[in-house]
Amino acid sequence: MTPKPKKKGRLTLIGAGPGDPELITVKGARAIGEADLILHDALVHEDLLAYASPEAKVEYAGKRAGGKRVDQERINERILEMTLQGKEVVRLKGGDPFVLARGQEEQKAAETVGVEVRAIPGLSSATAIPSTLGLPLTQRGVNEGFRVLTAVDRHRRLSPELKEAVGSDATLVVLMGIRRAEEIQKLFKEAGKADIPALMVQNGTLPDEKRSFGTSGTLTEMVEKDGIVPPGLILIGETVRQTLEYELKTRSHAHARN
Amino acid sequence: MTPKPKKKGRLTLIGAGPGDPELITVKGARAIGEADLILHDALVHEDLLAYASPEAKVEYAGKRAGGKRVDQERINERILEMTLQGKEVVRLKGGDPFVLARGQEEQKAAETVGVEVRAIPGLSSATAIPSTLGLPLTQRGVNEGFRVLTAVDRHRRLSPELKEAVGSDATLVVLMGIRRAEEIQKLFKEAGKADIPALMVQNGTLPDEKRSFGTSGTLTEMVEKDGIVPPGLILIGETVRQTLEYELKTRSHAHARN
Repeated sequence: MTPKPKKKGRLTLIGAGPGDPELITVKGARAIGEADLILHDALVHEDLLAYASPEAKVEYAGKRAGGKRVDQERINERILEMTLQGKEVVRLKGGDPFVLARGQEEQKAAETVGVEVRAIPGLSSATAIPSTLGLPLTQRGVNEGFRVLTAVDRHRRLSPELKEAVGSDATLVVLMGIRRAEEIQKLFKEAGKADIPALMVQNGTLPDEKRSFGTSGTLTEMVEKDGIVPPGLILIGETVRQTLEYELKTRSHAHARN
Repeated sequence: MTPKPKKKGRLTLIGAGPGDPELITVKGARAIGEADLILHDALVHEDLLAYASPEAKVEYAGKRAGGKRVDQERINERILEMTLQGKEVVRLKGGDPFVLARGQEEQKAAETVGVEVRAIPGLSSATAIPSTLGLPLTQRGVNEGFRVLTAVDRHRRLSPELKEAVGSDATLVVLMGIRRAEEIQKLFKEAGKADIPALMVQNGTLPDEKRSFGTSGTLTEMVEKDGIVPPGLILIGETVRQTLEYELKTRSHAHARN
């Protein structure tokens, strides 16, 4: 008699959201509680790991720049090892697993060996941070859309999408742009667009959130003046104006944090 | 003795997420439970109202096209009436209150009379629906960003942002575009870009979700072939290709829905 084939496990990719641990979805929190193994990134808040069952294994699988680094191959191997043993594996990533992240690489590795994959989306910092600040990404009569982009491409050159964005009415949400503030500001200045309201946010949605207001032409001053360090978000657009005016008027922001 | 001034209440704008009621945030669910009054849109899933306390008032304040309509002024009045009585008011909106929505109008009305406002972001369908399908909005070596836009401006003309998007490598997420499929397809055809993979999704993240695959040049065929009706999402970009190929290979999608 041949041995009965083992039941395959499942990989669940979960977006942990932008920072505040309460900004995970109800579905994501429940799935963490049902996992046998949780592989989490460095950017994931430790309070989220409290949803794990006492029997679950919790392992670090982060790739944070400058910090401890776990190879993608090693992460994929661990996912396969456990799912092929019939385990429920959760991959918990900051933001959303498919928005400027690389969820599809882990997804493909699992699908290749026939492991079931599901994704539970998370709040991307690109939309969640402006929303928490009451900042609309679109406004009737101002624009019809917004653009989310990384400042650099995979060769670390300034992204072509960034060059196309100068001159657009869309609100720009720039990720991984703090270190390239000077080059971004230069693009806007050269196009005669140095006066567009801009906002930088570091540690958005967390108690130590830092904000800096300025314009598309003063990005480097903003970084220096308010001591903004990466990772952070840069918002550029006319829709930033009302938030800026409100901030100037009230000094401390009226949006309660809790 | 003058009467003690009443404690002012608070307005909490909450994003209910893209459809699946479990895709609300933990924080949003908790805030619904703490509200005295919940004003909700038509697109909000009724399961979310189960988080309300038994003492809370639950009122419809939707503005769904074609359905029952409640005036924005009437909504604002109701918010002020209750918050000025010291009540906790929740405004529960589909998606995120500041992503292609009009959260700022209610926010401003409340702030004008000194009522505290906070926002709890929700998952926008623009990012959550692709993520649930395992579709990355960006991919290393393919592009550096994505664009979210409405097909029409406030005068119901084709959005300038849509015209700028033709020819971009960014993944396009088009909202309110199903009815304008013919015009959108024409834009792409005229630019010689009729072969970009495209996906339409209706009722995304819900059990009755409908998907249709095609290209930027076959949008009207997709609408007809699969009976897509608004509201729905149109995704156009090279990043759609791998999801399309996967779908064709497996016929039924491997992403579990629960």
